[in-house]
Amino acid sequence: MKTDTFTIPGFKASAVAAGLKKNNTVDLALIFSDKEAVAAGVFTTNKVKAAPVLLCMDHIHIGKARAIVANAGNANACTGKMGMENARQTADLVAKELGIQSNEILVASTGVIGAQLKIELIQKAIPDLVRNLSPEGFTEAVKAIMTTDSFPKMSRFDGMIDGKPYHILGIAKGAGMIMPQMATMLCFILTDIRINVHDLKKALSTAVEASFNRITVDGDTSTNDTVLILANGMAANRTMNAQDLEMFQKGLNQVGIELAAMIVRDGEGATKVVHIRLKGAASEEEANIATRTVANSSLVKTAFYGQDPNWGRILAALGRSNISMKEEGISIWIDDIQIVEKGMGLGPKQEKKAAENMHNKEFHLTIDLNQGNHEYTMITCDLTHEYVSINADYRT
Amino acid sequence: MKTDTFTIPGFKASAVAAGLKKNNTVDLALIFSDKEAVAAGVFTTNKVKAAPVLLCMDHIHIGKARAIVANAGNANACTGKMGMENARQTADLVAKELGIQSNEILVASTGVIGAQLKIELIQKAIPDLVRNLSPEGFTEAVKAIMTTDSFPKMSRFDGMIDGKPYHILGIAKGAGMIMPQMATMLCFILTDIRINVHDLKKALSTAVEASFNRITVDGDTSTNDTVLILANGMAANRTMNAQDLEMFQKGLNQVGIELAAMIVRDGEGATKVVHIRLKGAASEEEANIATRTVANSSLVKTAFYGQDPNWGRILAALGRSNISMKEEGISIWIDDIQIVEKGMGLGPKQEKKAAENMHNKEFHLTIDLNQGNHEYTMITCDLTHEYVSINADYRT
Repeated sequence: MKTDTFTIPGFKASAVAAGLKKNNTVDLALIFSDKEAVAAGVFTTNKVKAAPVLLCMDHIHIGKARAIVANAGNANACTGKMGMENARQTADLVAKELGIQSNEILVASTGVIGAQLKIELIQKAIPDLVRNLSPEGFTEAVKAIMTTDSFPKMSRFDGMIDGKPYHILGIAKGAGMIMPQMATMLCFILTDIRINVHDLKKALSTAVEASFNRITVDGDTSTNDTVLILANGMAANRTMNAQDLEMFQKGLNQVGIELAAMIVRDGEGATKVVHIRLKGAASEEEANIATRTVANSSLVKTAFYGQDPNWGRILAALGRSNISMKEEGISIWIDDIQIVEKGMGLGPKQEKKAAENMHNKEFHLTIDLNQGNHEYTMITCDLTHEYVSINADYRT
Repeated sequence: MKTDTFTIPGFKASAVAAGLKKNNTVDLALIFSDKEAVAAGVFTTNKVKAAPVLLCMDHIHIGKARAIVANAGNANACTGKMGMENARQTADLVAKELGIQSNEILVASTGVIGAQLKIELIQKAIPDLVRNLSPEGFTEAVKAIMTTDSFPKMSRFDGMIDGKPYHILGIAKGAGMIMPQMATMLCFILTDIRINVHDLKKALSTAVEASFNRITVDGDTSTNDTVLILANGMAANRTMNAQDLEMFQKGLNQVGIELAAMIVRDGEGATKVVHIRLKGAASEEEANIATRTVANSSLVKTAFYGQDPNWGRILAALGRSNISMKEEGISIWIDDIQIVEKGMGLGPKQEKKAAENMHNKEFHLTIDLNQGNHEYTMITCDLTHEYVSINADYRT
């Protein structure tokens, strides 16, 4: 996708290097809506919530927003009252410079946990940040929210309602501490669609459930997970009917799923992306639990890394996931190669073929429990030497 | 401990190289009780149970046993009817050679999942196995059950009841797929104490709960976890009173805890052993869940490897563990160095001191939730490059 397509009517963005990251690259991003936008958000379920998450949850209550300010380099998590004060001051300073109300600003942070934000660096950077705002600013803004990410993550969808075009633009960051439960690291989605706040909230929850809640890198849920959506209504479409909403939902899901898959592709140290589909579960909840247990098993993930169709580890993970299952009912495939039937391995010949598929960067793992009609999908990655290197050395 | 102390009145052991392991080392072990022994066992809670586990659960019903036969190199798990047949035949063959009943034999296996046991190799090896039985055979038998273990694990306790000495000897194996729930990999405990089967069962469950259920290497519960205890009564002690039972329990716990700690010390790729103590939880169950979540977090475990007192990751793990907690109530120590008070970091000076403690091979992590009076302890290890190497290459 060409970067010049990353504009969206009525929104501007910018980024500056405020000095919060060690390497003097851009680390402070601003997204601005020319007019008041309808706004919704989904946040981490971690009981330890970062200050910007708490502030965002407070501000988004009014159902509208004008701007998002986000920094990388410091998560402003586990920072107590001073952290809350710093988040609030960030919003105040940006609001003042933009000439809008503080509660119209949504705030997000990502980076090291447990260190106080250097608010004076942010304060110094804000005039430039506002001055740089431009419709083409999104390609810089997405870089400013990267931490251990190795590439920026953007996705766009173009739709049409009653002959009127509308657009969805999403930017996201995330590579580690990824097992979102109701949200993922940072993701900002902008649309020019005209939509009411009730429908927008519902659409966002649905999209998040189908995308960010279906990925895992390391099973660790972040303290800062935030997905925000702003809809400025500039598409001037008719009041949406059920079919319009359905089409918008499809587009929003697509953007969410694309960004979520990018996060797994960029999973810390990952060399493989594995699309897991578990079917035949007795209930939706059991399908979820079983898939999540397989997707997070260190032994399954190191076998992915070793390109080894080690289905015994998959059965062992299913067996400890505490779902209703019969070993002798289970079938397993790697892409289109079946390696387990009725709980038994189909032998070295099939495993060799499966191992060949595992040489690809992306492959599918399909599990049939044969217990019922419920299924679940997740995207996971392998567990590698590089993951250990990144996370043993992160702060030092 | 000197190996010549690894004998126990009335028990013999032996080992042979049957050819089940690739490297032609001992891989088949036999433990024999000269007289009928009272027997109890605790087994994996994984719903996928290996054939020898199912057979053992069946045989142990009678509350007594004469022998344990165990092999490494093949777990005989996920092997269907033929696997069950092979486990049964192993017991039959050993029983015949020993001249005892088949249901007096307990069977255990460990190694690769999903491959059929080569029963003809076992059949060929059994005459030598029985011929080699000797009171000094335990040091060889413990080697025969090793897989990725780097050292044999034995522990002994000497007790006294009413002036009469008795002994407890335990041998164990395990290094990966370790997060026992009601049991661990393989552990065989022998004692010459005279005890009834009811008291023995209760004592074993208590000891397992205090030892093997408190360790984790990689959060994966094995399909083959088995702890067996045989008591031959040769100590000829009086019928045990409450105080005798209490002392026996203490000894049994000590043997269990020693062996469990050895398993973590030998955790695949581990360079650090971390004793986690979580106190101040609202309930026993929450103490368990919270401790387990911290002990299994990939991010916490890589921080241990990096010798980094990264308490933000510990708070994040607690926060996603879904227990009742207040961030601002939490305190954290590495050994005697406090690094978090009331949810806030105590700064770089304290962290530097804590990091120095983390240079040791073993250290303590203490967490106080300040929510109640319940506590839990677990022993975990770090997540390292070597863990990834071992498990990416295990079958290839």
